[in-house]
Amino acid sequence: MVRSTAQLIRRKGVSGTGMREIVLEADAPRGSLQHYFPGGKEELVSEALLWMGGVAERRVRRHLEHLDPSTPSALLSALADDWRVDMTNEGFTGGCPLVAATADTAATSDQLRQVLKQAFDGWQEQLMAALVALGVPDERAEGLALTVISALEGAIILARTRREVAPLDTVVAELGPVLDASTTNGPLDAAAVTAAQP
Amino acid sequence: MVRSTAQLIRRKGVSGTGMREIVLEADAPRGSLQHYFPGGKEELVSEALLWMGGVAERRVRRHLEHLDPSTPSALLSALADDWRVDMTNEGFTGGCPLVAATADTAATSDQLRQVLKQAFDGWQEQLMAALVALGVPDERAEGLALTVISALEGAIILARTRREVAPLDTVVAELGPVLDASTTNGPLDAAAVTAAQP
Repeated sequence: MVRSTAQLIRRKGVSGTGMREIVLEADAPRGSLQHYFPGGKEELVSEALLWMGGVAERRVRRHLEHLDPSTPSALLSALADDWRVDMTNEGFTGGCPLVAATADTAATSDQLRQVLKQAFDGWQEQLMAALVALGVPDERAEGLALTVISALEGAIILARTRREVAPLDTVVAELGPVLDASTTNGPLDAAAVTAAQP
Repeated sequence: MVRSTAQLIRRKGVSGTGMREIVLEADAPRGSLQHYFPGGKEELVSEALLWMGGVAERRVRRHLEHLDPSTPSALLSALADDWRVDMTNEGFTGGCPLVAATADTAATSDQLRQVLKQAFDGWQEQLMAALVALGVPDERAEGLALTVISALEGAIILARTRREVAPLDTVVAELGPVLDASTTNGPLDAAAVTAAQP
């Protein structure tokens, strides 16, 4: 039921997903929803979002074990590939449930907003640890992990509007070399960063 | 009415925004909605999304005229600053209506999906032209513009879940130097990009 909820949120957001539809999609007996999720839709959606956060974390760990070559850009490419496969198989009908839920509930449910923060934080921490394991300096890992997650999430949105995976390919092509360069060169140009601040 | 619709979509998505609420938010007389938007909610939402695309394009053009220094990283910083101001003023209750609408309608309305593609394309073309005007080589501008839009959109989502602007600052700090480096150095490392492709 949790997985079905995440699938529906991926396609239509939280507001667009009805409880009856979840029961149908999960092929669950009536009444089971009230039994397992006495907190109703908000509780079920929270579980679905935390489940998705866990999926994102496990994907990072799994790829880290099998990377060839063992570089940050290969990790980024593998992560983007998971989304490429999902989106292509489903005809671009679904995106990331964390983004969908943030877009339509972060302003109206503080419980869901905190769950979303927790899910994104867990994903970012796992990615930071993986980048460090691949040679990214500690002081760069947090910023690069956040940038990678941001760019992937934005590219997934663009891919949905275009019904093609090219935006994911572009982000991999642009950010992969930046990640790899950080392992040897440190910040690209600290003075330019400072100058760019408003 | 178009503007009020965009504001509501920013906060709660398309599915979460009711027609009655739009009339209330716009302080418009009953019946005016049917009069001006005979195509109903889908027509009104389409207009709101195209309006937002126009806002994003105009912001790029306006900043380009007043940049100091005249660098791609300063443009990125100025664009992020628009979002910082909006989100801070509104207590992080709203994000980008284009992302919100993609998340909950791209799978169910091909009309809205095409409108969203059009809005994002217009924004990306304007940003590409601006990057070229700031010295980014033609062959890099498309990929970098797409990466900037993706990363900003993702950072806006993360900023909403955290109720802080730090994700936008991080994206500016990480991508600004990449944009500036492209004006003189060309691709960071073409061999690494090729190796990173799956």
